[in-house]
Amino acid sequence: MKAAIISVGTELLFGQITNTNSVYLSQQLNTLGFDVMYHFTVGDNPARLRKMIETAYEDCSLVVTTGGLGPTQDDLTKETVTAALGDETILDSEALNRIKKAFAKMNREMSANNEKQAYLPSRAEIFYNDAGTAPGFALEDGGRTAICLPGPPREMKMMFERQAKPYLESRSDGKIRYRMIRTFGIGESSLETAVLDLIDGQTDPTLATYAKDGECALRVASKRATAEEASQAVDDMVELVKERVGGYVYSCDNEDLCEAVARKLIEENISISCAESCTGGLFAEMLTKTPGVSAVFDRGIVTYSNRSKTDELGVKESTLEKYGAVSVETAAEMARGLKAKTGSRLCVSITGIAGPGGGSAEKPAGTFCTCVIFDEKEELREVRHRNVDRNVNRNYFMLYMMNMVYRVIS
Amino acid sequence: MKAAIISVGTELLFGQITNTNSVYLSQQLNTLGFDVMYHFTVGDNPARLRKMIETAYEDCSLVVTTGGLGPTQDDLTKETVTAALGDETILDSEALNRIKKAFAKMNREMSANNEKQAYLPSRAEIFYNDAGTAPGFALEDGGRTAICLPGPPREMKMMFERQAKPYLESRSDGKIRYRMIRTFGIGESSLETAVLDLIDGQTDPTLATYAKDGECALRVASKRATAEEASQAVDDMVELVKERVGGYVYSCDNEDLCEAVARKLIEENISISCAESCTGGLFAEMLTKTPGVSAVFDRGIVTYSNRSKTDELGVKESTLEKYGAVSVETAAEMARGLKAKTGSRLCVSITGIAGPGGGSAEKPAGTFCTCVIFDEKEELREVRHRNVDRNVNRNYFMLYMMNMVYRVIS
Repeated sequence: MKAAIISVGTELLFGQITNTNSVYLSQQLNTLGFDVMYHFTVGDNPARLRKMIETAYEDCSLVVTTGGLGPTQDDLTKETVTAALGDETILDSEALNRIKKAFAKMNREMSANNEKQAYLPSRAEIFYNDAGTAPGFALEDGGRTAICLPGPPREMKMMFERQAKPYLESRSDGKIRYRMIRTFGIGESSLETAVLDLIDGQTDPTLATYAKDGECALRVASKRATAEEASQAVDDMVELVKERVGGYVYSCDNEDLCEAVARKLIEENISISCAESCTGGLFAEMLTKTPGVSAVFDRGIVTYSNRSKTDELGVKESTLEKYGAVSVETAAEMARGLKAKTGSRLCVSITGIAGPGGGSAEKPAGTFCTCVIFDEKEELREVRHRNVDRNVNRNYFMLYMMNMVYRVIS
Repeated sequence: MKAAIISVGTELLFGQITNTNSVYLSQQLNTLGFDVMYHFTVGDNPARLRKMIETAYEDCSLVVTTGGLGPTQDDLTKETVTAALGDETILDSEALNRIKKAFAKMNREMSANNEKQAYLPSRAEIFYNDAGTAPGFALEDGGRTAICLPGPPREMKMMFERQAKPYLESRSDGKIRYRMIRTFGIGESSLETAVLDLIDGQTDPTLATYAKDGECALRVASKRATAEEASQAVDDMVELVKERVGGYVYSCDNEDLCEAVARKLIEENISISCAESCTGGLFAEMLTKTPGVSAVFDRGIVTYSNRSKTDELGVKESTLEKYGAVSVETAAEMARGLKAKTGSRLCVSITGIAGPGGGSAEKPAGTFCTCVIFDEKEELREVRHRNVDRNVNRNYFMLYMMNMVYRVIS
């Protein structure tokens, strides 16, 4: 079934915000088996929105809108969609109650224009909003379906996940389940080659690869008569994929690498400290994004200057002179010094050249050395990453460290 | 004049990448005086692309496309736009030479399909690509103009800035100049109120406010007969705005706060070290994004555990017990300890509760304490930021610190 996504909001046309709703909805709709044909963005203007809705229905049977459901005069998505699908809005008492309650909870007066949000299409299935005040809905007319969701990403995602997705699934002739396998250290084309016969060999489950910021993901999706059958088919395929490329896999459930590492450290109560040079605190920062990591993360030392490497971590001046700040010898002394100082079970270090300057013929920008010590075990690596962008390099360096930590504690 | 932006690429419809090209082009076109009416995204499909082009020209006189200019069979934007505007493609020898040279430089064989990129609309003004191989172009037909740019953001931006923008300006009846004033510490509505008479009082220069990730920007744009007059009008207005809200301004030329701080530290050769708790390395990471900062950044210490605050910075156990880890007393001892240890002219510390857990009635999540020492001068603050999201809080904390540093060295 073909689908179009319409984003409503003048701020998008001014370039004031980035349209992340379309990215999320595209992924979700593709997974549910829809072919997304178009993204349209239009301002808070009923005539142009109507034009987009009609253009979309020329090819598509599903239109998903985001934005324009709020209480102000500008917010006209609901009215426009309702008219396009030949319905009219009526007061929904449940919606009104919920809006009243939300205002009472915030100790704020409910202004009259908020009542507008409780007028909803008479034939619609209403999606009450668990994260805000504006309700959404699904409305059908003949073979055409419209799903209207709020604009704020958090509200939109919660409503899609809890209400729009089950709605779409209930109208499907099967149940779709999927899992996202995340890998690090293998390129997209190598990943594809490794599973090519699985991709070519069958139509369900389907496999698709995605490259993203230095890593690769593989989506396995299945549509079967029941959710159990679809889940089983996906799980079986995930096992087959793991047999091929398991050494690169760090999550079969779409977990972020940094979160996966933080969660594992917390679960197994492994204390960790880090010493960073070229990544400038990025490793510590990514690790501490996960709540609760304070139970295991002791400290991070960003030793940017040579002096700080000596002061903080006991790196020998002779090592810096003989091998240079970017060397496996320096990385090893950084991690060992950190271990001696903190006693953390896991100590990790990195030193490198993020670029664009600072490289040499022997050690070009993109070179980094990293050391992981876990209890008595020590791993040491020198790696070259050829990207020219300083911050792309820094991100890759950090992911590489994160992955080494993941491997050593798995 | 009304404009539409068409992004071409099936990967956008799969949700594999976020459409940042539309954001950039919207900002640029608005600044040049265009009203952006639509964003369309369509796959590598000539029939649907043609439909989008025709839909756009119903309302708009300018269509800007990105993507689909490459060498493969899929890349059909050029052919589709050329046909829509009643032209045909011919071999452009300059384009061919450039593509040949690019391959020679990479020491790679030029495959035959790359020649396809040198066929360009016969009536077009060609935009040769300084950052890749695919040329772009501007093509007119009656009152309709199409500008076709490559998809990779770096190539697209360079071509827009160097070629498409001058092309559009040369067809305008005036010259447009603008500056972006960046502020921290003032909300969007307060900023707007402070300059409301300037906004309402005149039609040129125009002022527009933008809120973004904890800070606010104000764009001042002018269109005059000459570039000099437009620049002068913008500069005069920037001065008027600075008279009103100068205390919140950190850049009048759209510089990022973290970059502005790094640049100033480098220019004035001020050594800096930082001690972070709740921001987990984010301050150090943002500061070290700027190349060349190694000349002034000595070290960062991420003292996450209480023990590390004592070990690394000499924070007294009695202070932690009596006032807590999140207190101005602890923040002050952190910065003083860092100063004693490093001797950096500027030492900055932060301790706080990013949330969602860890708060109390007295010190809810979002509370942070920060201390800046610059030579003999010491500034100490306790602040509450009410956002519920851990990483929104962390980002705000970091910006707050960055802004304090900016103020103290300005």
